[in-house]
Amino acid sequence: MSRVRLTLAEVRDRATRGLVRAGISDENAAVIADVMTTAERDGCESHGLFRMQGYCDCVQAGRTDGKAVPVLHDDAPGLLRVDAMHGFAAPAMIAGRQVLADKAREQGIAAMAVTNAHHYAALWYDVDGLAEAGLVAMGFVNSQSFVAAAGGKRKLYGTNPMAFAWPRPDGQPPMIFDQSSSASARGEIQIHRREGRSLPEGWAIDPDGNPTTDPEAALAGAQLPFGGYKGAAIAMMVELLAVGLTGGKFGFESHAEGHTDGGPSEGGQLLIAIDPARFGGGDGALAHAELLFQEILSEEGTRLPSTRRYEMRARTPTEGITIPQSLDDTIRELCGE
Amino acid sequence: MSRVRLTLAEVRDRATRGLVRAGISDENAAVIADVMTTAERDGCESHGLFRMQGYCDCVQAGRTDGKAVPVLHDDAPGLLRVDAMHGFAAPAMIAGRQVLADKAREQGIAAMAVTNAHHYAALWYDVDGLAEAGLVAMGFVNSQSFVAAAGGKRKLYGTNPMAFAWPRPDGQPPMIFDQSSSASARGEIQIHRREGRSLPEGWAIDPDGNPTTDPEAALAGAQLPFGGYKGAAIAMMVELLAVGLTGGKFGFESHAEGHTDGGPSEGGQLLIAIDPARFGGGDGALAHAELLFQEILSEEGTRLPSTRRYEMRARTPTEGITIPQSLDDTIRELCGE
Repeated sequence: MSRVRLTLAEVRDRATRGLVRAGISDENAAVIADVMTTAERDGCESHGLFRMQGYCDCVQAGRTDGKAVPVLHDDAPGLLRVDAMHGFAAPAMIAGRQVLADKAREQGIAAMAVTNAHHYAALWYDVDGLAEAGLVAMGFVNSQSFVAAAGGKRKLYGTNPMAFAWPRPDGQPPMIFDQSSSASARGEIQIHRREGRSLPEGWAIDPDGNPTTDPEAALAGAQLPFGGYKGAAIAMMVELLAVGLTGGKFGFESHAEGHTDGGPSEGGQLLIAIDPARFGGGDGALAHAELLFQEILSEEGTRLPSTRRYEMRARTPTEGITIPQSLDDTIRELCGE
Repeated sequence: MSRVRLTLAEVRDRATRGLVRAGISDENAAVIADVMTTAERDGCESHGLFRMQGYCDCVQAGRTDGKAVPVLHDDAPGLLRVDAMHGFAAPAMIAGRQVLADKAREQGIAAMAVTNAHHYAALWYDVDGLAEAGLVAMGFVNSQSFVAAAGGKRKLYGTNPMAFAWPRPDGQPPMIFDQSSSASARGEIQIHRREGRSLPEGWAIDPDGNPTTDPEAALAGAQLPFGGYKGAAIAMMVELLAVGLTGGKFGFESHAEGHTDGGPSEGGQLLIAIDPARFGGGDGALAHAELLFQEILSEEGTRLPSTRRYEMRARTPTEGITIPQSLDDTIRELCGE
């Protein structure tokens, strides 16, 4: 399949135009376009222009309010709640991020809940900005039900990613991981189906609860958590933090409402930010952590999470990125070209 | 092997007497005896009287100060740091817990670092008291190095447990999980060695980094994280939160100091407490979470974490507990009987 080369400026420009044309406000389109451009910059295709159609569909189907204006609630000295007003999560997160950072610096630790939001971006994007500002950050977001409980047979938890970001000194980008609670990404199963390949064992069960390597049976059944019951516990924790605390909808509640088209459900999200300079370790915390990273990297075969993203980030501003011809066609259509 | 039956009052009495006789202060002995009694009450033998010898050895070898008086530092409105003054972690945690709870209620979220401490108790004990007080709690503690990094071959991370507690309404005990970042507990490998059994695959690698099912080779080599690279990321996060933030010692740093006798290293610990009533979800948060628990339990074959502990807890106050004759002999000796 032929691919089309774009500069990052072109990615941003097209994303913005397409989103606005779909009925998303200028302010929200700017944020969402930045999410997609950042993803493409970092070689994270699955959250790049690939999502354009989904963003536009959500708005045009009336499920998500593209013109929503987030409302901030100062719930407590250490807590901020951002009501996304049934829009996408990214504009709400950006609307609250500076307040969250200020609270974390003032209180030492602070949390931000995002409610009534459709989270459709990479979770690492949300913690990245906090870590770039020198804060340690954790993020939790749920999705509609895809993953079985420990010992269970049906879809119950979302794929429920959890992200963690640790700032690094001397202008280095933060150490960030962003990992789902499921053994594999749902998209990976869809790719296996498209390519007619069997799944690795341990990814999924069929509708009867039996282990399966058949992508079709896996999509009809349930994905498995990573690492057995321990991963299932993480998936449950993410539901409780992202939804239980914030008043959103659990994955199974969205599912029960018939929301099964694969787009983002209206769940919940929690971000926690900690100022490492306020602890006793003081300014030494970041320097000390570098010793851990050095120790990890001193062994052959190891690397830090997010390294691949940063390798791409070093190249794409000059080299640009490529997208499949078919996606380019879609984007042009969405932009009305 | 014959077993000896004890009431919980006898457990507490013997634990207290033995600890004091080993040179631990009355105040600290009361806390540590409560840790062991609570563990025995909940059927958690590995953190019960089984640990007596270890506590006493640590103090008598001069590695841990049994008479340490914890010092509280009010680092920020949302942060408390408790210096355990080279004593055990449990007395420091108890010394700070009420302040942490007060801060969480006032700020919405708060964190407590425990430093210069030897953590030798079950982590669920630390979050249990917070959840019993109505708070959502997370706990992170590192240990000396036993677990390989993702792609690595040597011991680098501790077994690094992470605990999460969610309070439940109507007098129900909290939902708590407390799980190590390793595929198995180290003690499980030692039990396999003692019984001459092979290990399940995926637990460990030998000193050359090859997968092994031989307990001896596993103990000389490194344990593997649970769930592959995702579990390794959790292990790294625990080191960063428990040590990086608090100024303690990473597992590999304790290891490099020749601390390899299996007792607790002087690492670090972080507890985070959140008041669910301060979020927008308000009082509804706990009731809403019950719907998630119901959904989980509506499937055959599922259960909530900590259920087994609570089943034991219902029985042991009347039935008492049993310990092996050999452990009873050890305890009597430590008590000077």
